[in-house]
Amino acid sequence: MKKIILLAICCYCLCSTVQAQTIVEDFKPSTLNQPGQLYPQVNSQGYARFKIFAPKADSVKVSLGLGGSGGTVLTKGDDGFFTGTTGGPMDEGFHYYNITVDGGKFNDPGALNFYGSVRWESGIEIPAHDQDFYALKDVPHGNVSQILFPSKSTNTSRRAFVYTPPDYHKNTTKKYPVLYLQHGWGEDETAWSNQGHANLIMDNLIAEGKINPFIIVMTYGMTNEVKWGKINEFKIEPFQTVLVDELIPYIESHFRTLTGQPNRAMAGLSMGGFETRLITLAKPEVFSHYALLSGGVYSVEDIKGKATPKLIFLSSGSKENPDRVKQAANDLKAAGFNAVSYVSDKTAHEFLTWRRSLKELAPLLFRSK
Amino acid sequence: MKKIILLAICCYCLCSTVQAQTIVEDFKPSTLNQPGQLYPQVNSQGYARFKIFAPKADSVKVSLGLGGSGGTVLTKGDDGFFTGTTGGPMDEGFHYYNITVDGGKFNDPGALNFYGSVRWESGIEIPAHDQDFYALKDVPHGNVSQILFPSKSTNTSRRAFVYTPPDYHKNTTKKYPVLYLQHGWGEDETAWSNQGHANLIMDNLIAEGKINPFIIVMTYGMTNEVKWGKINEFKIEPFQTVLVDELIPYIESHFRTLTGQPNRAMAGLSMGGFETRLITLAKPEVFSHYALLSGGVYSVEDIKGKATPKLIFLSSGSKENPDRVKQAANDLKAAGFNAVSYVSDKTAHEFLTWRRSLKELAPLLFRSK
Repeated sequence: MKKIILLAICCYCLCSTVQAQTIVEDFKPSTLNQPGQLYPQVNSQGYARFKIFAPKADSVKVSLGLGGSGGTVLTKGDDGFFTGTTGGPMDEGFHYYNITVDGGKFNDPGALNFYGSVRWESGIEIPAHDQDFYALKDVPHGNVSQILFPSKSTNTSRRAFVYTPPDYHKNTTKKYPVLYLQHGWGEDETAWSNQGHANLIMDNLIAEGKINPFIIVMTYGMTNEVKWGKINEFKIEPFQTVLVDELIPYIESHFRTLTGQPNRAMAGLSMGGFETRLITLAKPEVFSHYALLSGGVYSVEDIKGKATPKLIFLSSGSKENPDRVKQAANDLKAAGFNAVSYVSDKTAHEFLTWRRSLKELAPLLFRSK
Repeated sequence: MKKIILLAICCYCLCSTVQAQTIVEDFKPSTLNQPGQLYPQVNSQGYARFKIFAPKADSVKVSLGLGGSGGTVLTKGDDGFFTGTTGGPMDEGFHYYNITVDGGKFNDPGALNFYGSVRWESGIEIPAHDQDFYALKDVPHGNVSQILFPSKSTNTSRRAFVYTPPDYHKNTTKKYPVLYLQHGWGEDETAWSNQGHANLIMDNLIAEGKINPFIIVMTYGMTNEVKWGKINEFKIEPFQTVLVDELIPYIESHFRTLTGQPNRAMAGLSMGGFETRLITLAKPEVFSHYALLSGGVYSVEDIKGKATPKLIFLSSGSKENPDRVKQAANDLKAAGFNAVSYVSDKTAHEFLTWRRSLKELAPLLFRSK
């Protein structure tokens, strides 16, 4: 009897990886839809369903689908709507996508747009089992302020967003340390608050008393001037000048900041991690806490004798290259550095990895004396 | 000889209204394009030109065109691009638009999006001869802060944007009066800074010493729950509660504000003016300065014996109903009120009218003792 049950379970397991599972019809509008829009929708299994009106079109395709599937082809109905569902459950969290209508690339009129891939893309959210940590809750909220700071090196006023903690307005003599937090290639200074919910993550951590409140500054890393695939040609110096010589002095003269190297951290996701590594190593006197989120690693040789970081944080999605960050952190620890690695379970090179990474990083920042 | 010249001028005038003028080929990308996008373009005469890639589509139409034209039909080229130019010069300033691809409504992938018509729409900017007053200049800039304030009446955290003047951070004991500034129907709390450049208008006026600096608060007026054409069914009470009982106390406890009726103004464009009129009349003890921008008028009967506004500002585009605001302001002045009318030259029910209105309104606010 036991053998039969085991066989049945085994067969079920094997079959379920080959055959499509039954789709549960509990689809709800994605939380990132435009006001009042019913599509796209997501079900409890993580399938996404799309519905696009284009009555005279011949073909509509959604870029989002299972890995390697090349997307989801929609089927035209008599009512002029194209509909379709992904071929399987998507990873939890945020995904960029776009739609192709008769060969032209557009956005889904139902979804909000997010800057990624050097364009404003449609976004969809597959509810994550741990979504509570970035949910909008009834807790005191910090502000996200758009600032325009003068930049002589680029001869313009540049934009940044500054998160200030909920109690920033209360005690007008209190000063805060600062995390400079970079987006990835194709994105810009809007990414960490729009896609990343960095402000809500901070609000929630602060409400739970889990972190020493700090300011976060997010600006454009000038990453998108270089084409994807030619990242090696990227020159860090122009952005390093903007960040270190222009933005930091502006922040420290316009916000109540604790100044000096011990009170400054730099972190970045993907290409923003690449930038973080280059700038922290070039300017060890400026930053004391370094974090690369799906953005490479530091070797012991990078740091030893050159910098004295108080923290090195390395993270990755489990579907990326988690062993690399774990190994690097172990090597750094063995060499005497305060290094931490974090692997986000069942996520790839996407924003849920980075939301979780920020949640893990924040409590570690500005703790050491 | 004089007769001949007159005749020639007359003929020229008549002909020019009938025949299309020669299009000057000095088209440049709209200033509201997405980074790196070459189309849409605008020329020195105010024509707009569009270019959309949709190689397998049969028809692409742009909603923007001369009044009554129903838009601009684009022509397909062998390269898969649809191109076309408006049938004449557009009004100066900002315009919303969308494109129809084989019967479906989408946005122009080249343009930035702005929330209007209860959807994120494409936006294009026809350079105005007076654009300097809302240009990004090398002057001290104020911040636009996203706040999330608790709202018991709607059982959620609601979003608002708060403009603080450039010197807000400097003197931490200085307090400021506050203008509550509403968007129109179909728009939301992002409109006044994104489409309206309210922050840049303020920065420039402050740099020129033309105004007494104040804070601006912009939140969602809950206008879009009612369909356009059924505005009469709109109930002001839910928004009035949010604004007066929830947002104002939050602002006055989280920002350094001068409190009390003399230090609060309310203004709104279009349906935001409709809201402003209702709320200022219902709560004369809350606001002292009232402004309706293309948003109706106050009659003497509305106010006399019921409220004691320090300022009533009424504005309109010259292509709307300018006589109505002028007449209303004259009547109010004759009845002893400090009423001012402003008519924006050669503009309709669009954002250049409201940018200019804010520029005219701001120097009049919080001046009287």
